[in-house]
Amino acid sequence: MKILWNNKIVDESEVKIDTEDRGYQFGDGIYEVIRIYDGLLYMEEEHLERFWRCAEKIRLTLPFTKEEFSQRLHQFAEEVGIKNGRLYFQVTHGTSKPRFHAFPEPQKVMPVLTADIQETSRPLEKLSKGIKGGFVPDKRWLHCDIKSISLLGNILALNEAQENGYDDAILVRDGFVTEASSSNLWMVKDGVIYTHPDGELILPGITKIKVRELAKDLGIELVEEPFTKERLADADECFKTSSVAEVMPIISIDGKNIGDGTPGTITKQLQAAYIEAIEKSVKKM
Amino acid sequence: MKILWNNKIVDESEVKIDTEDRGYQFGDGIYEVIRIYDGLLYMEEEHLERFWRCAEKIRLTLPFTKEEFSQRLHQFAEEVGIKNGRLYFQVTHGTSKPRFHAFPEPQKVMPVLTADIQETSRPLEKLSKGIKGGFVPDKRWLHCDIKSISLLGNILALNEAQENGYDDAILVRDGFVTEASSSNLWMVKDGVIYTHPDGELILPGITKIKVRELAKDLGIELVEEPFTKERLADADECFKTSSVAEVMPIISIDGKNIGDGTPGTITKQLQAAYIEAIEKSVKKM
Repeated sequence: MKILWNNKIVDESEVKIDTEDRGYQFGDGIYEVIRIYDGLLYMEEEHLERFWRCAEKIRLTLPFTKEEFSQRLHQFAEEVGIKNGRLYFQVTHGTSKPRFHAFPEPQKVMPVLTADIQETSRPLEKLSKGIKGGFVPDKRWLHCDIKSISLLGNILALNEAQENGYDDAILVRDGFVTEASSSNLWMVKDGVIYTHPDGELILPGITKIKVRELAKDLGIELVEEPFTKERLADADECFKTSSVAEVMPIISIDGKNIGDGTPGTITKQLQAAYIEAIEKSVKKM
Repeated sequence: MKILWNNKIVDESEVKIDTEDRGYQFGDGIYEVIRIYDGLLYMEEEHLERFWRCAEKIRLTLPFTKEEFSQRLHQFAEEVGIKNGRLYFQVTHGTSKPRFHAFPEPQKVMPVLTADIQETSRPLEKLSKGIKGGFVPDKRWLHCDIKSISLLGNILALNEAQENGYDDAILVRDGFVTEASSSNLWMVKDGVIYTHPDGELILPGITKIKVRELAKDLGIELVEEPFTKERLADADECFKTSSVAEVMPIISIDGKNIGDGTPGTITKQLQAAYIEAIEKSVKKM
């Protein structure tokens, strides 16, 4: 596999990650996953904007401009040649020795970029049939707006749901639903779409930005407010969104059907509109 | 620098960390720091016990027994030859490809151990003069009992305190003091020592175990119960404990003196008893 390692494209065997890289010892880094459709880095600009915002939140001075970085990613994608896949990239705070908790001074450390592109197909069967969710207490930190690589909280939640026999966790904090373990969470009741507002409790999803636009285009009311797990259990439809899961129906929670236990009407409308939007973007390329 | 890398002792230049090591992409690993005094791995057994407990909590099957691992650490310490320092080790969930959030099946992945030993001297000046704390909201996750490498929450808290001009953060959740950014936190009022009880909100410190013993030996009452920031601000003494910071006096918080703004009597008693306990253990070696 080819890796974009700082400013070089190399084989993965050539990459040298220091054991004291702060990404490896502190989870001190941020990342993004961009879906590539027919060679298009979908919503690249929005991903890069979020990446720069997150860098600032962890006091990470990125060693390139957004334009330089975008160019580097495009060269990488071209060299790898995968037309349908996902681009993963992360930047850590780099290596500062000896190990010490505090952020290193920016001039004394060089951040470390690693990126790869892997083939990914759309999860067609799940998109058509839907998946099963299970409620799990949201025990993550209160900086969920930072897309950091300190992800163990998300993974423990997912693991708990899977140990209970579900596909993903529906996270609940103080009685209110926040999101899924790595996607935003939505419900539909009486024709209105609801989702948790942005803030420290959820990641401001890139697919969420698109679904906002699509709901508006389709004339469907969208309300961003926290809702309880009881309201969700009583909803007509439920779905989650992320760059990789797209608009993914959730047909049951804790074994109880949502609506009639099949993907809902508005969910399917949004799925179709999402694909249409991608196709339009690909054509414009 | 020499690294203990799985079952080999190698130069750091020889270590190969995969870019998809789950420690590097998810903070999916655990660690320990053991102080070495005159060649003694101080409270090694307690550190290893906690390490094994934490491994279980993140569904990590360690590829060696406690006895094998202890032997490996001792061989490593002997080969490195540093008599006064700190031994750092971490184990990640290993590399499973392609990147996917869920924990890999134990039989499909090999955990990755990395360890190093670096010279460390006791922070004598700080131990004698004390340090300054600042209150910071505790925004970490609710698995603080797991000594994981997903540490960005701790680091952001420390950074906030340091940006405000303080040495360390005194973390406050829902009005109650939990701990410092990487040490347990204690206060003394009217001759009684108080600290937060173990549980999901703090790390069960190894030095905390020792301080419990010492307080008992010294005949000082110790109460493990949560206390508010107001009670702490009004305390006679304050200190934090960790393997590296030992018994570290905190002489002011948010610029306001604790007691008379110098290390307190009971704090100094515990400092002396802590050193005595180390010396006794070293002699017994």
